[in-house]
Amino acid sequence: MKVAIVGATGYTGLELIRILSGHPEVKITAVTSERYAGQPYGAVYPAMHQAVPMILEPLNAETIAEKADIIFTALPHKEAMAVVPYFYRQGKKVIDLSADFRLSDPKVYEKWYQEHTAPELLPNAVYGLPETNRTRIKKAHIVANPGCYPTSILLPLMPLLKEDLITPASIIADSKSGVSGAGRALKTGSLYCEVSDGFKAYGALQHRHQPEIDEQLSCIASKNISISFVPHLVPMNRGMLSSIYVTLKKSIDTPMLNKLFTKYYKKEPFVRLLPDDTLPQTSWVRGTNYCDINFVKKGKRIVLFSAIDNLTKGASGQAVQNMNLMMGLDEQTSLSCLPVLP
Amino acid sequence: MKVAIVGATGYTGLELIRILSGHPEVKITAVTSERYAGQPYGAVYPAMHQAVPMILEPLNAETIAEKADIIFTALPHKEAMAVVPYFYRQGKKVIDLSADFRLSDPKVYEKWYQEHTAPELLPNAVYGLPETNRTRIKKAHIVANPGCYPTSILLPLMPLLKEDLITPASIIADSKSGVSGAGRALKTGSLYCEVSDGFKAYGALQHRHQPEIDEQLSCIASKNISISFVPHLVPMNRGMLSSIYVTLKKSIDTPMLNKLFTKYYKKEPFVRLLPDDTLPQTSWVRGTNYCDINFVKKGKRIVLFSAIDNLTKGASGQAVQNMNLMMGLDEQTSLSCLPVLP
Amino acid sequence: MKVAIVGATGYTGLELIRILSGHPEVKITAVTSERYAGQPYGAVYPAMHQAVPMILEPLNAETIAEKADIIFTALPHKEAMAVVPYFYRQGKKVIDLSADFRLSDPKVYEKWYQEHTAPELLPNAVYGLPETNRTRIKKAHIVANPGCYPTSILLPLMPLLKEDLITPASIIADSKSGVSGAGRALKTGSLYCEVSDGFKAYGALQHRHQPEIDEQLSCIASKNISISFVPHLVPMNRGMLSSIYVTLKKSIDTPMLNKLFTKYYKKEPFVRLLPDDTLPQTSWVRGTNYCDINFVKKGKRIVLFSAIDNLTKGASGQAVQNMNLMMGLDEQTSLSCLPVLP
Amino acid sequence: MKVAIVGATGYTGLELIRILSGHPEVKITAVTSERYAGQPYGAVYPAMHQAVPMILEPLNAETIAEKADIIFTALPHKEAMAVVPYFYRQGKKVIDLSADFRLSDPKVYEKWYQEHTAPELLPNAVYGLPETNRTRIKKAHIVANPGCYPTSILLPLMPLLKEDLITPASIIADSKSGVSGAGRALKTGSLYCEVSDGFKAYGALQHRHQPEIDEQLSCIASKNISISFVPHLVPMNRGMLSSIYVTLKKSIDTPMLNKLFTKYYKKEPFVRLLPDDTLPQTSWVRGTNYCDINFVKKGKRIVLFSAIDNLTKGASGQAVQNMNLMMGLDEQTSLSCLPVLP
Repeated sequence: MKVAIVGATGYTGLELIRILSGHPEVKITAVTSERYAGQPYGAVYPAMHQAVPMILEPLNAETIAEKADIIFTALPHKEAMAVVPYFYRQGKKVIDLSADFRLSDPKVYEKWYQEHTAPELLPNAVYGLPETNRTRIKKAHIVANPGCYPTSILLPLMPLLKEDLITPASIIADSKSGVSGAGRALKTGSLYCEVSDGFKAYGALQHRHQPEIDEQLSCIASKNISISFVPHLVPMNRGMLSSIYVTLKKSIDTPMLNKLFTKYYKKEPFVRLLPDDTLPQTSWVRGTNYCDINFVKKGKRIVLFSAIDNLTKGASGQAVQNMNLMMGLDEQTSLSCLPVLP
Repeated sequence: MKVAIVGATGYTGLELIRILSGHPEVKITAVTSERYAGQPYGAVYPAMHQAVPMILEPLNAETIAEKADIIFTALPHKEAMAVVPYFYRQGKKVIDLSADFRLSDPKVYEKWYQEHTAPELLPNAVYGLPETNRTRIKKAHIVANPGCYPTSILLPLMPLLKEDLITPASIIADSKSGVSGAGRALKTGSLYCEVSDGFKAYGALQHRHQPEIDEQLSCIASKNISISFVPHLVPMNRGMLSSIYVTLKKSIDTPMLNKLFTKYYKKEPFVRLLPDDTLPQTSWVRGTNYCDINFVKKGKRIVLFSAIDNLTKGASGQAVQNMNLMMGLDEQTSLSCLPVLP
Repeated sequence: MKVAIVGATGYTGLELIRILSGHPEVKITAVTSERYAGQPYGAVYPAMHQAVPMILEPLNAETIAEKADIIFTALPHKEAMAVVPYFYRQGKKVIDLSADFRLSDPKVYEKWYQEHTAPELLPNAVYGLPETNRTRIKKAHIVANPGCYPTSILLPLMPLLKEDLITPASIIADSKSGVSGAGRALKTGSLYCEVSDGFKAYGALQHRHQPEIDEQLSCIASKNISISFVPHLVPMNRGMLSSIYVTLKKSIDTPMLNKLFTKYYKKEPFVRLLPDDTLPQTSWVRGTNYCDINFVKKGKRIVLFSAIDNLTKGASGQAVQNMNLMMGLDEQTSLSCLPVLP
Repeated sequence: MKVAIVGATGYTGLELIRILSGHPEVKITAVTSERYAGQPYGAVYPAMHQAVPMILEPLNAETIAEKADIIFTALPHKEAMAVVPYFYRQGKKVIDLSADFRLSDPKVYEKWYQEHTAPELLPNAVYGLPETNRTRIKKAHIVANPGCYPTSILLPLMPLLKEDLITPASIIADSKSGVSGAGRALKTGSLYCEVSDGFKAYGALQHRHQPEIDEQLSCIASKNISISFVPHLVPMNRGMLSSIYVTLKKSIDTPMLNKLFTKYYKKEPFVRLLPDDTLPQTSWVRGTNYCDINFVKKGKRIVLFSAIDNLTKGASGQAVQNMNLMMGLDEQTSLSCLPVLP
């Protein structure tokens, strides 16, 4: 399979390189970057020199479509929708890591981002969360790869919503992300000295991942849901932990809840239910495609915890998982490494 | 004023040293440590050698009482109540940084810790949160210095509870602490490699600070309150941020809420209400006695944010603030430094 | 191949688990730990639960010898030599990650550690640096796996010493290590708050790796060499960078030096010579078995730089590399992953 | 004293604010910033809002000269020499934190930076290292505040060079700096994810501080000296440690060396000679104006260690120390705080 990575020098592009370099069915045939066009990939990331001995090229949709059958677009929001339609029309399979095809309603997109320039494609895009959408992903031509926050919030909530066990209005997601979530762009707030040895919330109740979370939860629950979502920034490179507070509609004991989660997730290769009192830690999923989940309960209050690597299950690992599904491969291909600990 | 620091080599003891060394009215006359007894303080902390040219001594209550008029007990929980009664009977003023005198009901203490060995003193201990208890602190002989989590949760909630604006059952406190909160004891979980580049929750819904938080909130609100409290560990030395979710009883607009917070806190020297959309960051209070507060609101949901340095306003800074009050000094004496940034 | 990991819960044991779990020829048949004996491995490291669904057992040499053909001893110094002789006599292949079999002279060992209890085995132990000892390693029954500091210092110096280009007395190695080098033992100096946001030297001119470095350099150069070696501690989990200062015996230009390094290392699978002005960074080798090397030159002064992951090429990765050689496998088996970046 | 801070929003400007806000003789009358002109200082650094309730203004030399008697220029290199001449001609006292007035020879400056636009002023600029230049600083109108690397290298070497005890050609300085040394400018290399959990050298043997170090060492030793200098980047906010390797000309024992250092430094308020085997750590000087020094010795090889806070003794603290000297104040005014530990 010939694969192109459009936007290969950002952190999600880099993570795609890491994962796909070890993929037995994949040949990376093109890597693009506007900023570093003309330079070998190894000039930007010397550690990857041997694995990716290619020259970065500027994004030209026609050239890319000629070189590849599967295209990962790891571009900033807004830039993806400028090229995805062309790839689609050329019969390519596209996995888009931006937000451009995640929201089904272009008006919602416009409210949070800007006018959508390819609204006609939105019905063709499949939301790429395999744990809820596997069948559709297998047949998809455009996969809208989920955001990191939504992934970490949807997975623990899904069984409870499917079974209609919780009050939707009660849902609060207090999420914490590593700094790589902000990407490699130059922002004062991403400087080492601004982040290190500190902690803060940002975008409280108004983060751009909110409509994506709400839409997908509503879809899972078959009713309108709008949660309270507050993201925070943790001084670490990778990792995301969501602490999610919900209220049960009626009493249900812990063993029953455990059974429920087991029912939904025991066959899922990338969801790990932790035993008993063991709460997830982001370091345990570092560099892996796992989502670790557990919960605690007191009366009708449940607190769910999920940990993912924001660049792997939260972005590029899930994108490769989707590619594997789209191409009829074993879903775990090239995604089975253990975390680098400590 | 002759001051003794009992338990001077832990992190709260060290922070007391840092603050009291620059206090114009204080002379440190004794520092104790079982582990390092007989060594100069500078052998444990070379950076403090010149400021504290004293020899650490083992804790002997009689000796300490002879040497000092004011005694800070920065001992592990359970050890404080073994010596505080003696100091009290000798007429000393005691500021206890442990949990031993924070809970008014010895049965509650026993449930979360062990049997209380000095229950007769509990009625004499004043909870040392100046923003709610200033008058009583001024006359106190034993001050139970608040825990870091309670401080960070009580201050933002107090105005809303005093005015009866929120539903008590709705309160959720999702708190995040730097690693120094675990002290200097040798635990695997406090090792650099176990904490760095990671994030986790711990003690979810069952942390020992919970009864202290509940008692004080109940006292402020004049009704029984039990919140949902989940602490987390951030890979940073100092700092604590609490994100507190509450539901308004009735509609109230943001300017009104701002007015309310201003009314309660504009004269408080160590509470800073941040402007508009500026959310607190722990680095902004690093090494200071400030509690920075702000909130966001959507409909009837309010999210309150507070940031403190867990060792300063969350422990030793507040202890010195209490000492200043007990001794009739300017409350801010030796507590007015700015944060070391970045 | 049946493999036992003796001392499986320290950081080098954990890294062995990570690497060997993906090794197609290896079945891990025993993992030992005194501290956690009787518990499943996943109780100590939940992230490894699925990969290593085994119970930790206390170290009993006979039991281990029955269960495994290849034994990794990842024990503290001094404990390894208590069991290695038994394994050896049973015809097992042993890769010892401690210092116990690295020094050929038991008197030198005694000076830096304690009396050696198995000096008769020292002649049988092969120093496990494949880049200098590959042929002997292939036939070895006991491999003394090199220390992390020695590995990072020997590899860049080897070509220059082999060619007799530098003044031995001029060699200075200023090395910097991540915190995992101190292991998982409980020491105040390994606590997060003692290490984070700081930097220090330790063991200057008297570190225990010094005699190992000196012996191996002397062996390479066929003359007595004793360098100046100063290790430092970096607030990071993994990684080691050595900056090595040497003086050329006579003028030699940079292209010639590049040729020389290429001659020695172009066929080495785990040594990467970086281009031109690109200096090594520890993050580029994180979790990999690479040693990245480059140098700068001014007049007769050369500064060599090498970067390794102290737990991989500096310990467990190199141990698996040695195992691969001893068993006639492709040297790179299970060692070809890319670094987790960022 | 009316003081202006030109370039107040970079990290050295911020550190000047922190220190000068507590200075009893100083009134800050102007703060400048091109980027944030028109905004209150607290909009850039909310933590400083109360301490510096001023509006940032664009740099207009005339306005600044009207408002202040003492002017700190914390500008990037090259920009300082554009305004310092005007301030000088208006009779102002200037402490310049850039490199513009540190090198006495404009040709050397041109080689490492660009053409010097105010070479006529170089003879008037006094190198602001109080430990070697105190008398001249007291009378200076322009102080060229030393670089952080030079400060950390000059102080430990000075006694040995003054006494002609070491071979100048042998000097090697292996220095390690925290990230704030790179300032607050937006560079990919300063991003959190590029720095965290990693370590590297940079500018090896060709860093811009090299000519400053060489000139000052030559001046101290009264002979031409050019050292080997290699800086490194440590994942921490503040701090600098230099490990300096020298060769003694003749044998001299450790007690004699201790005596020598004591002779030079026992009266220096900001140089601390650590006892015996205690090596400096950057955390011990965090936020303080101290330079901690110690050494180890083996034969004729000495390794000197010095630790400073690169923003305090390495920049703004030393600048205030210089101001105190220039204005006839106690040198330690506003510089006596203890480190924030841990």
